Amino acid sequence: MCFKTNIKVRYQETDKMGVVHHSVYPIWYEEARTNFIKQVFKISYSDIEDRGIMLPLSELSSKYIRPALYEDILTVETYIKNMTNVKIEFEYKVYKEKNLINIGHTVHPFVDKNFKLINLKKFDLELYNLINSNYKN
Amino acid sequence: MCFKTNIKVRYQETDKMGVVHHSVYPIWYEEARTNFIKQVFKISYSDIEDRGIMLPLSELSSKYIRPALYEDILTVETYIKNMTNVKIEFEYKVYKEKNLINIGHTVHPFVDKNFKLINLKKFDLELYNLINSNYKN
Amino acid sequence: MCFKTNIKVRYQETDKMGVVHHSVYPIWYEEARTNFIKQVFKISYSDIEDRGIMLPLSELSSKYIRPALYEDILTVETYIKNMTNVKIEFEYKVYKEKNLINIGHTVHPFVDKNFKLINLKKFDLELYNLINSNYKN
Amino acid sequence: MCFKTNIKVRYQETDKMGVVHHSVYPIWYEEARTNFIKQVFKISYSDIEDRGIMLPLSELSSKYIRPALYEDILTVETYIKNMTNVKIEFEYKVYKEKNLINIGHTVHPFVDKNFKLINLKKFDLELYNLINSNYKN
Repeated sequence: MCFKTNIKVRYQETDKMGVVHHSVYPIWYEEARTNFIKQVFKISYSDIEDRGIMLPLSELSSKYIRPALYEDILTVETYIKNMTNVKIEFEYKVYKEKNLINIGHTVHPFVDKNFKLINLKKFDLELYNLINSNYKN
Repeated sequence: MCFKTNIKVRYQETDKMGVVHHSVYPIWYEEARTNFIKQVFKISYSDIEDRGIMLPLSELSSKYIRPALYEDILTVETYIKNMTNVKIEFEYKVYKEKNLINIGHTVHPFVDKNFKLINLKKFDLELYNLINSNYKN
Repeated sequence: MCFKTNIKVRYQETDKMGVVHHSVYPIWYEEARTNFIKQVFKISYSDIEDRGIMLPLSELSSKYIRPALYEDILTVETYIKNMTNVKIEFEYKVYKEKNLINIGHTVHPFVDKNFKLINLKKFDLELYNLINSNYKN
Repeated sequence: MCFKTNIKVRYQETDKMGVVHHSVYPIWYEEARTNFIKQVFKISYSDIEDRGIMLPLSELSSKYIRPALYEDILTVETYIKNMTNVKIEFEYKVYKEKNLINIGHTVHPFVDKNFKLINLKKFDLELYNLINSNYKN
């Protein structure tokens, strides 16, 4: 299961090298992840937070292949890479037309409002099933 | 009463024009304001929030006179411009060596945790006096 | 002449107060201005820079009326407020559904690649006419 | 060889989870890297760019162990992890008092003004020796 998000590069996202600053890509991953959750799981991330569950980020990696420029229209393909009872991992492929320009990967443990790690299957079976059924397909 | 904060320009704060992006200055004002509150009022802004009081921003204005560049060391002079029972106004003068490169102005109403406007003198007289005595001097 | 840009609030744009940080609005104005230039003037801002002309920001003001929240869909209405041979001013009205939540105003002198002020009518009459005809209507 | 940079967390760097947003850490790494270059290599990164050499980022990874909060004073320890004729790798350890809260790693190829990969030893032996001698010690 893959979901595509379009991103238009903002002027503020560029730096004096003339290209998009590397710290911007994790923000695009997050935008893409938010859309993925809404479109594939049919629940907004805000709703997940309202259920007392947060998905902070515990690991991030990114490979920068080609630069992105101001006013570029990019496509971020998002996948679930792995899911267990305690965490979920996403992968992102950023394309400029047909060229892959960046690949990203993020890991998110399931935590409660106090940042305590939770077993999602025990904590909220309904949400677990919602996510897991989309992961399997 | 004036307090000075030093800022070193970060690479990420520049844009493809080769200078600091205009959206960065309000972040520097906030850094300068945080320092002002800590050094002049002898209370951290975190402590003010812990007392149930927030100072959101209701108005911002900024005049850009000269550009700031990567690795510049700047000085932000911060003043209280005005204070009443319901709001406080700050002014910021950003210098690059002896040259004034930017002037900013922000207005902050006093609000409670639910963003309801409060009369600080009635809500927290101790904090009001702490701020007011430094404003008057 | 008014042009509307839709903005979806990103998680990274929020702060610990739970609402969008005030420094984000100027970035949205810029996104809206880029779209305005492309749709109304029928030229991209990148193309203007390629002609040797830049529109840096010399003045910014913003009034924050209501907060914006994560995942809000906002509309930014953009207008030319004023135009002369040497500068252009834009106004932005940010709406959350029918509620006006923020008003912004920016001033942009016309400068060349060396940040020298230019008279656009003399420097590039074609571009001047393109902008001016849309300002008048 | 290790160099320490102090960072004070800005309000704007927090998000609605109440902690520093993960996209901020790469900006801190860059601040720490800039300081490392200046203090250890005795040359500013601006000077390196003026010699026609840039160090864009080709790979980034980050492990988030504990959250950072507004007004925290953090220390970023920076090391050169590896260096060859064509690239340099840095490692960053972010501490909050004695607790390690984040580890980062970045890879930077040496490129010229046109983003073409270069062999630094051939392109600028003086700079190569300057960096290499500090890497070895």
